[in-house]
Amino acid sequence: MNAASEHSLRIQTLANSVLAGDRRALSKAITLVESAQPLDRALALNLLDIIMPYTGKAKRIALSGSPGVGKSTFIEAFGQFLIEQGETIAVLAIDPSSKRTGGSILGDKTRMPTLANNPKAYIRPTPSGNLLGGVARRSREVIALCEAAGYSTLLIETVGVGQSETDVSEMTDCSILLLQPASGDALQGIKRGIMEMADIVIINKADGDLLPAARHSAAHYLQSLALMPKRMPDWACPVLLCSALEKTGLDALHEKIREYFVLAKENTYFSKKRSEQLSTWLEDETLAELISAFKAQPELQAQYQALQQSLASGVSPARLAVEFARKIIAPTQP
Amino acid sequence: MNAASEHSLRIQTLANSVLAGDRRALSKAITLVESAQPLDRALALNLLDIIMPYTGKAKRIALSGSPGVGKSTFIEAFGQFLIEQGETIAVLAIDPSSKRTGGSILGDKTRMPTLANNPKAYIRPTPSGNLLGGVARRSREVIALCEAAGYSTLLIETVGVGQSETDVSEMTDCSILLLQPASGDALQGIKRGIMEMADIVIINKADGDLLPAARHSAAHYLQSLALMPKRMPDWACPVLLCSALEKTGLDALHEKIREYFVLAKENTYFSKKRSEQLSTWLEDETLAELISAFKAQPELQAQYQALQQSLASGVSPARLAVEFARKIIAPTQP
Repeated sequence: MNAASEHSLRIQTLANSVLAGDRRALSKAITLVESAQPLDRALALNLLDIIMPYTGKAKRIALSGSPGVGKSTFIEAFGQFLIEQGETIAVLAIDPSSKRTGGSILGDKTRMPTLANNPKAYIRPTPSGNLLGGVARRSREVIALCEAAGYSTLLIETVGVGQSETDVSEMTDCSILLLQPASGDALQGIKRGIMEMADIVIINKADGDLLPAARHSAAHYLQSLALMPKRMPDWACPVLLCSALEKTGLDALHEKIREYFVLAKENTYFSKKRSEQLSTWLEDETLAELISAFKAQPELQAQYQALQQSLASGVSPARLAVEFARKIIAPTQP
Repeated sequence: MNAASEHSLRIQTLANSVLAGDRRALSKAITLVESAQPLDRALALNLLDIIMPYTGKAKRIALSGSPGVGKSTFIEAFGQFLIEQGETIAVLAIDPSSKRTGGSILGDKTRMPTLANNPKAYIRPTPSGNLLGGVARRSREVIALCEAAGYSTLLIETVGVGQSETDVSEMTDCSILLLQPASGDALQGIKRGIMEMADIVIINKADGDLLPAARHSAAHYLQSLALMPKRMPDWACPVLLCSALEKTGLDALHEKIREYFVLAKENTYFSKKRSEQLSTWLEDETLAELISAFKAQPELQAQYQALQQSLASGVSPARLAVEFARKIIAPTQP
């Protein structure tokens, strides 16, 4: 057997194991799609070819919240609750801030000890390293793999303020924003851009002494949300109280998520969003692959090196770039 | 006079006014480089051609910190202090989270009333809109314009956790991270990736009742920083206490910044960083312009539309993208 058919057999076997719900195979498959090695990439593409028809069936839920709001405890509690309702769940993490050393704490299994030991839950730590094309690129493939492995709900966790929420929102069906009881400055400090991306807002830690502050915060956020554009027609983003510690409010949240998906499927918001996301996926991949193809081309690279030499003489990079690009992708080319 | 030479004259006049330090001209020039209109872009490139030789002389300082740490008050106080030391300052803002509606609060002049009325300070609010190629792309041009206008220190403000810090760090000489006194979870919650990008850490609000907590936080962060890789050789990231409200600690910070720049220039870290940043600028522009050139090409666009049709049949976007890119940028092309 030659190398090519050996590889092909290996990938078919891996794909079968993923489709059969084998967790170890899933981990192996995720490592493969996250790899930056060219051979791995070729194999990953083959793997995706096989599993693509089996994807798309899970509820994809984004879960964002700043450090300290109790995200791990929440996922432990809510994940456990979902499993009791008959779901199987995969917890993924997207964390753009770990770019430099990959020193991320998201998705760490030790943060969710109960869930990590439950056979109906799969927890995947954040990939390290800096991927061309942003955090979203490989995450979409990881989502596809988890769906192929049969998980019914995906919880895609992200942190903080900014680009990561936008990226995750472009990969999921429903975005949950986790907040904690706050007052004064902290209440005002939640950025508009972050709230606008939420389909459901949860105030966690709504227990004990914090309950009055939680109620007050909920009222405040409801008012702010009322002034923002609706993400889905006929859906007013609710603000729910919950305590991951005391396991309260989880049933109400579960019901809200159910209502959200029912409405989204009825009014075609769901299918439109999925179809747009597929287009965005294609676009991101195409742009990233154009760049890779460009970088792999020695003649183009030599021309590019020459540009870099001109930088020292004080020519504007913007000018150099626009002239170079017009030469490469010229209207006269086939 | 024909349209082209009229444009050319207009841009030369605008460039002269920017170089003479005319604030209104600077604002107009910044609006021009931030514009997405093709004609504006052509004019912006001409403007950059003229001003490029006059750029590079300012100290470029990044200032990041989550909402609520008192960034506006700090910039008011420290900006005023710098002006008293003979500097002229420009305050710019980069805020990726305002992508959707541009509802950003960064860089808002009303947040810094004293500084906004000082003739030696220029405050530029965040651009709205979603720029191809990330927030960094136009910001570099805005930096160049402010330098051409003669400002001696640029304070480039960013918010929160994540990509924006990385982007800003790739455009500046020195990164200051602004924190506030914290304890418990909040003390642990500062992400490693964010701390790793700091050259100087400041604990703001080190006044009154918060002073003990500020000291405790400083000790904690110093310990964490000691375990992280050094950004610049021989530079241990200091943690300084300051109170923007009581205007204390500003002189010590100013001195630390001075020491940082002296060392950076001595050990060539400064010049290496600037040169790398120029290369990154060229690379980002080249990739963005390749994409623009690609999108402006009707034949390529028609081929791309055909790909999108295939998505519905369950083909992997990753596969479609890689084959398309190889066809466009083929090794046989000139």
